[in-house]
Amino acid sequence: MPGKHPDHPLADFKVGIDNVIFSVDTEQHRLLVLLVMRHEDPFIGQWSLPGTLVRQGESLETASYRVLSEKIRVNNLYVEQLYSFGGPKRDPREAEHAYNVRYLSVSYFALVRFAEAELIADGVSGIAWYPLNQLPELAFDHEEILTYGTLRLRNKVKYSPVVFDILPEMFTLSDLYQLYITILGDDFSDYSNFRTRLLKLGFLKDTGIKTSRGAGRPASLYRFEADAFEPLKDKPMVFV
Amino acid sequence: MPGKHPDHPLADFKVGIDNVIFSVDTEQHRLLVLLVMRHEDPFIGQWSLPGTLVRQGESLETASYRVLSEKIRVNNLYVEQLYSFGGPKRDPREAEHAYNVRYLSVSYFALVRFAEAELIADGVSGIAWYPLNQLPELAFDHEEILTYGTLRLRNKVKYSPVVFDILPEMFTLSDLYQLYITILGDDFSDYSNFRTRLLKLGFLKDTGIKTSRGAGRPASLYRFEADAFEPLKDKPMVFV
Repeated sequence: MPGKHPDHPLADFKVGIDNVIFSVDTEQHRLLVLLVMRHEDPFIGQWSLPGTLVRQGESLETASYRVLSEKIRVNNLYVEQLYSFGGPKRDPREAEHAYNVRYLSVSYFALVRFAEAELIADGVSGIAWYPLNQLPELAFDHEEILTYGTLRLRNKVKYSPVVFDILPEMFTLSDLYQLYITILGDDFSDYSNFRTRLLKLGFLKDTGIKTSRGAGRPASLYRFEADAFEPLKDKPMVFV
Repeated sequence: MPGKHPDHPLADFKVGIDNVIFSVDTEQHRLLVLLVMRHEDPFIGQWSLPGTLVRQGESLETASYRVLSEKIRVNNLYVEQLYSFGGPKRDPREAEHAYNVRYLSVSYFALVRFAEAELIADGVSGIAWYPLNQLPELAFDHEEILTYGTLRLRNKVKYSPVVFDILPEMFTLSDLYQLYITILGDDFSDYSNFRTRLLKLGFLKDTGIKTSRGAGRPASLYRFEADAFEPLKDKPMVFV
């Protein structure tokens, strides 16, 4: 029982939640992450992922939703657990305490629809969507958490239909391709392969409606068919 | 600053590590998980995942490897973080403390080669590989942790070459198929599709050596070519 050895005292922890909330501005083709300004030490005045410390009697998920409900209004917000960062010295508050209290962060992850998400600004709190390629310096180890979250997002869009949660109900294949480029970078696939592969999976339905934008031929509008995807849900597949 | 509200006191935590260590007995075609007998309260005398509490100054990974090094000797053990379970009331010790200390478990996951893994029995400690379909009752919420770990394992073998870490260096395609059946169940794919798909990926090399077992034609022995897999590593793909 190592905990009872005086040579090896157990660490005491506070547990924090940090949320990596992504969105995509489909007009400007930018991948965005939600950041808030810190108003207390440590890292006062720096940007950080929206987080909180877990209260007595509160589950990890509840803490995640609690802090998000203070920052953002959005339909069908569903967070998933990402990773736990809990090494010694990750939080400067650890050193300040006589009790040697460590701070473990359990990170959560979501992708939300940009047009619907409403940020809650109360006059003092800084809150903003930042493009991933124009980030400010982040507090704590939040850059590392965000890097991990970005990897998860890029991986997830390859295997799961999560992008359809943030597209409009009807979209062109070119809209869809552009969204993938915004998330994955522009060398992930050429359009023709992308189109062929996605259509073969069978869950995109041509609505029969055409749209005209700018010059070029009118493009067909598609819809994601959740019913057609349902039987494929547990099959391994690759979208792009 | 919710932590400073007397109405919402922060929870104090100890952090535990629980390891979900899988192996496959390829002779008897059984998927196994490593369990240890508890010798202290709570759940004294029950089987549990091998775990420990994190010590002062110790990282989460170090704690995971520390407890495993006391239980099992195996080459190239590499654990990956699985999930954190941290809800209130998941550990009966929470109630016993006047300080209302909660126990959060960060679970780690590995798949090890059965023939190489040597369990360390010190005379008092119970330690055993249990087949997944013949589990005893587990302490704490370890059944839930194990269920999560099993899902991760089944998902991982579909997308990553992790099974080649536990096969012998040379194997028949039938050995490989049998290993997938042991992990995924026998309705995941028929042999002919499996064979075609795996060979098309290009990282299995026919060694030119044949093996004879029982009746039937001699079968070709294959080898996993890490060099041929390297350029595919970051590409999304499905193995089975």
